[in-house]
Amino acid sequence: MGLEPCRWVLAARPGKELKVSDFALEAFTPPELRDGEVRVRIEHHTVAPGVRAKLMEKTYEDMVQVGEPIPGNGVGVVEASRHPDFAPGDPVCGFLGWASVAVLPGRTLEKLDPGLFGGGVPTSAAVGVLGMAGLTAYFGLLRIGRLQAGETVLVSSAAGAVGSLVGQIARIHDCEVIGVAGSDGKCADILANSGYDAAVNYRARPDLAAAIRDARPEGVDVFFDNVGGDTLNAGFANLRTFGRIVVCGAMSRYDGGDAGVMPALKPGMRQTVQAFVTPDFAADFPAARLQLAKWLREGKLKHRPTVIPGIERAAEAFVGQFNGETGPRPIVSVD
Amino acid sequence: MGLEPCRWVLAARPGKELKVSDFALEAFTPPELRDGEVRVRIEHHTVAPGVRAKLMEKTYEDMVQVGEPIPGNGVGVVEASRHPDFAPGDPVCGFLGWASVAVLPGRTLEKLDPGLFGGGVPTSAAVGVLGMAGLTAYFGLLRIGRLQAGETVLVSSAAGAVGSLVGQIARIHDCEVIGVAGSDGKCADILANSGYDAAVNYRARPDLAAAIRDARPEGVDVFFDNVGGDTLNAGFANLRTFGRIVVCGAMSRYDGGDAGVMPALKPGMRQTVQAFVTPDFAADFPAARLQLAKWLREGKLKHRPTVIPGIERAAEAFVGQFNGETGPRPIVSVD
Repeated sequence: MGLEPCRWVLAARPGKELKVSDFALEAFTPPELRDGEVRVRIEHHTVAPGVRAKLMEKTYEDMVQVGEPIPGNGVGVVEASRHPDFAPGDPVCGFLGWASVAVLPGRTLEKLDPGLFGGGVPTSAAVGVLGMAGLTAYFGLLRIGRLQAGETVLVSSAAGAVGSLVGQIARIHDCEVIGVAGSDGKCADILANSGYDAAVNYRARPDLAAAIRDARPEGVDVFFDNVGGDTLNAGFANLRTFGRIVVCGAMSRYDGGDAGVMPALKPGMRQTVQAFVTPDFAADFPAARLQLAKWLREGKLKHRPTVIPGIERAAEAFVGQFNGETGPRPIVSVD
Repeated sequence: MGLEPCRWVLAARPGKELKVSDFALEAFTPPELRDGEVRVRIEHHTVAPGVRAKLMEKTYEDMVQVGEPIPGNGVGVVEASRHPDFAPGDPVCGFLGWASVAVLPGRTLEKLDPGLFGGGVPTSAAVGVLGMAGLTAYFGLLRIGRLQAGETVLVSSAAGAVGSLVGQIARIHDCEVIGVAGSDGKCADILANSGYDAAVNYRARPDLAAAIRDARPEGVDVFFDNVGGDTLNAGFANLRTFGRIVVCGAMSRYDGGDAGVMPALKPGMRQTVQAFVTPDFAADFPAARLQLAKWLREGKLKHRPTVIPGIERAAEAFVGQFNGETGPRPIVSVD
């Protein structure tokens, strides 16, 4: 590794519009290891849009203060360890941050089964299809959504890291999948590559509820919502009796507003709306990763991130997600 | 039985305000039995507030047309049968209507385990604690609400047929229970008789959300909502992380409006809102009735309906529920 140790920190509290200058890349000398700690050389990290909420307002995890490092999932290799479960060379993933190196307690890391990789499964998959995106799609659709074979699934932000996997996992379960995305290009992409049967460009159809109805007049059984706000309501209008809404990310809420409203449920419709965050299923991550890796090897799941080469481009890649300039499913390749 | 066969029918489509004159009691000559049918002499029937929706607007079951009989659960004894599973003298329950006699297909009836009754469990319990009210409380709280020991439960319409049982079942599970009711008398009643630890009179506290917060500043884990509308929102404002809202009846919606809105869920709060109707659990009714009857015999559950003597008072008892003139948990004793 020819890279000087470095990490991204919050340079300024973002206003309503996020700017690259809200972030700063600084040299970072990792501290000496204390008992129980591990030093990790980071290979890849995410720039997940969900991080934005932590920069703006109080969420379920602590908000980031100005000067503090930017959080994010990463995958890397142990360089040094004072924790009995980790040795140099071990592949690990965890909340490593937007950085080239991290020192953190071993108990916050997961050692990855080396058997997950190879056979067409790259290490970067650990922060993509085998990382939070894949685990979120998996647990959201199967546990929260209680997906049954043959049902119809609606997904918002369908071209995103999570949505592109939700479509594929739904198809593996013999379900029809309708995606909502923000451009004709994204719609074409998910139809070609992510298992979607129909796609709606919400920018081209001001009445999104009607557009979804046109795509699937019978309505949908599961709505995996990554957006919230008007999109949530448009999907809700198409939810069938016994339908489930999986409230996952909330892109529209990252602008600092509240979550807005949705229709109150009517008993006779027997519908469920449930919000979740993926870490609640941590105990079942290893089993889910094995299943996801199996689907990858079988060719049922595809892993197609936009790899951003160079940690110096992380802030640009992050901000670009909110104005459409960043390609789909970005993963930053550190070195 | 000295009573001439009779039944209540809808005399006029109700306007915004329900009137006794919207109903008419008419003589009714039961038709000859056809193959598969059973004639039941009805002993008790409910005047459940949920029926109102069927008189007003299309719901999950067909609406009642003018001239048609009023639906309702009842318990009675088989008088004659052309169905192999039923014989004269069998105790049965089912959707018998507001009537003194009913002829209907045997497949729509449930034969009651005679072992449910006796030892302090009267036959009328079949349309109360062992009927839809008890089954609704049981499945709503335990299956939809996924109640855990030690949690805090909020119940609206807490003095109603369902709510008074929800409180008691929650207490059986070592939970704290807060009830919302519409008068000081009802609040005193649920504190004394239905297992409630705290009670809020919503008529005395215009800001219901604040009143609930005063009663339980830590918030609630399960909100069993029998009301909807503003009450739903007031309870929602007090729902903790991982909290569940059980959307059961909808008294406030029986006035013909739509269901209104509620806050959109935030992922980090991991909350669930789920609507249900009790018949979805029909396969598990016998087991649930046995459990409820066991609690009754052990003195953990109390069955305290307001028994309205005489079928001629059914419409008055029904309408009186919406203006507070009818006592709690009304059951009409036919003869």
